[in-house]
Amino acid sequence: MNDVSLVEKSLFSYIPKNDEYIKKLFDSMRYSVEAGGKRIRPRLVLEFCRLCGGDIEKALPFACAVEYIHTYSLIHDDLPCMDDDDMRRGKPSNHKKFGEDIALLAGDALQSLAFEVMSLDSTVEKVGADRAVRCISKLADYCGAKGMVGGQVIDLENETKVATYAEVSACDNLKTAALIQAACAMGAICAGADNAKVKLCESYGKAIGIAFQIVDDILDITSTDEVLGKPVGSDEDNNKSTYVSLFGIEKCREMVDGLTDEALNTLDKLGGDTEALRELALNLAKRKN
Amino acid sequence: MNDVSLVEKSLFSYIPKNDEYIKKLFDSMRYSVEAGGKRIRPRLVLEFCRLCGGDIEKALPFACAVEYIHTYSLIHDDLPCMDDDDMRRGKPSNHKKFGEDIALLAGDALQSLAFEVMSLDSTVEKVGADRAVRCISKLADYCGAKGMVGGQVIDLENETKVATYAEVSACDNLKTAALIQAACAMGAICAGADNAKVKLCESYGKAIGIAFQIVDDILDITSTDEVLGKPVGSDEDNNKSTYVSLFGIEKCREMVDGLTDEALNTLDKLGGDTEALRELALNLAKRKN
Repeated sequence: MNDVSLVEKSLFSYIPKNDEYIKKLFDSMRYSVEAGGKRIRPRLVLEFCRLCGGDIEKALPFACAVEYIHTYSLIHDDLPCMDDDDMRRGKPSNHKKFGEDIALLAGDALQSLAFEVMSLDSTVEKVGADRAVRCISKLADYCGAKGMVGGQVIDLENETKVATYAEVSACDNLKTAALIQAACAMGAICAGADNAKVKLCESYGKAIGIAFQIVDDILDITSTDEVLGKPVGSDEDNNKSTYVSLFGIEKCREMVDGLTDEALNTLDKLGGDTEALRELALNLAKRKN
Repeated sequence: MNDVSLVEKSLFSYIPKNDEYIKKLFDSMRYSVEAGGKRIRPRLVLEFCRLCGGDIEKALPFACAVEYIHTYSLIHDDLPCMDDDDMRRGKPSNHKKFGEDIALLAGDALQSLAFEVMSLDSTVEKVGADRAVRCISKLADYCGAKGMVGGQVIDLENETKVATYAEVSACDNLKTAALIQAACAMGAICAGADNAKVKLCESYGKAIGIAFQIVDDILDITSTDEVLGKPVGSDEDNNKSTYVSLFGIEKCREMVDGLTDEALNTLDKLGGDTEALRELALNLAKRKN
C-alpha cells in the first residue's frame, strides 16, 4: 500500500461511523476529511520518519493528527465570518452542506481528535510516552496562536491595509509553513531523531512551506478558474498584500526557486534516501494547481 | 495563595502579552479567560491532585488546560451561528468585542493552548511524560466529538424537537459533565493515581456535573435575570427539552439531591480530607446563580 492509501485508511479509522445522537457531527467531520487534497502534511510525517530510520507504521497516528488540524483549519476558514467560501475543492464547503453550527463544531472536534489520536494507548505503545508528548508539543505549538492561527490573524489584518514585507512574511511563515514544519518534525521525532536533526527537518518544511504559499499567490494571478479549481484573482479583488503584490511575479518565481534550492540543500545535509522529498519539493514549486 | 489565585496567576502566564502582529488575538484570548466564573474545573484538578497525595504545583498546567477548553467552548457557543449571545457574565461576548473572525480564532487558539501547556517541557519535567500523556488523552477524549462537542451537537438537535429522556441525558452527560469528569481525572493522574482510583474520581465529577446542569435548568425557570446574571426563560422560549420540561421542578430537585448524595458517597469511598470537595458539591446543588 502506498503512503497516501495508508494515511487515508488510518484517517477514517479514527472517526466513528455510527452514533445514535452524534451521527451528523461524525458525517460532517468525515465529509471534509474525505475532500482531502494532496495529503502533503501526512506524507511528510511518514517520509521524515522513514528518512530518520523509523517505522512509518508508528508515525501514522501523527500523520493523521496533522491532517485533522489542516482539515479543521479549512472548515473554519471557509465560514461566513472568515473567507465565506461556498466551495472547497469542487464540493460545497462544510457549512454549506451541514450548516454553520455543525461546521464550527466539526472543526473544533477535528482539532480535539488530532490530540486524542496522538495520546491514545495504542499510539503511546508504539512510540513511547516521551516521543508522543514531544510530537504533541510540536503540533500544539505550531497550530496555535504562535503558529497557524496566529498566521490567520495576520492574514485578516493584511486584507485591510497595504502590508509590509515583514507582515506578509510573518503571515506566510505562520499560516502555511508552520504546520508543514510540524509535520516534518513529528516524523523525525517518531523515529527518535535528536533536536538538532529535528531542526534540520523543520528547515526543509519551512522552505517548502513558504515556497508553497508564494506559488499559491502566483497562481492566483496567472492561472484560470478551471486549472486552479477555485476562483482566481481573489487576492487582487480583496486588495490583499501578497509576495506578488510586493515584488511582482518574476521576482516571486526567483524566490520559489531559491527556497526550493534551500530545501534540497537541507536534504543533502540530512543524507539517506531523500528521493521522494526531493521530488515533492520540486513538484510543489512547479505545480499548476 | 489560595487555589483560585494560584490558577488565575498561571492562566495568564501562558498567554503572551506582546506581539507586534498578533496582539489582537492574544487580547481576545485574555479577555475571555479573564471573564472567568467560578473556576470550578481547575479547582477540581487541584483538589483531586491534593486528595490523591500529589503536589498541586505540578497540576497547575492541567488546571489551566481544562479552563482554556471551557473558555474556548463558551466563546464558540456565543457566536451568532450558535446561541448568538451578546453578553457573557455581564460583559460583551467575545465576538461583540473583537468581531466574529477573531472570536472564532481565539477559541481555536485556546484549544491549542490547552494541549500546548500540557506538553511543555516544564510540565513534562514536573509530572513525567507518562502522566502528561495520560492527562492529554483524558482531556482530548472528553472535550471532543465523543465528549463536550458531541454534547453541543445533541443540544442543537434537542432545540428542534421534543427530546426523550435518553436524548436530554446524553446531552447533559457530554455537554457539561464530560469536562468536569476530565478535570477530576487529570488531578488524580497528576498525583499518580491508578486507573481504578481515577475512575472513582471521575464518578464524583459525573454526578456533580449532571447535578450542575439540572440546577441550571431549574434556575432558568425559577430565577430572575438579576440574580442569575443572564436572561431567564431562554429554554422555554426556545422550546428546549430539559430535565425540567420532562420531569417538572420538584422531581428535578430530588434528582439534584440524589446526585449530590452520590457524589458525597464517592468521596467517602476515596477517603482522606474531602472537606473542600464535599462543600463544592453541596454549594453547586444549592447555588442561586
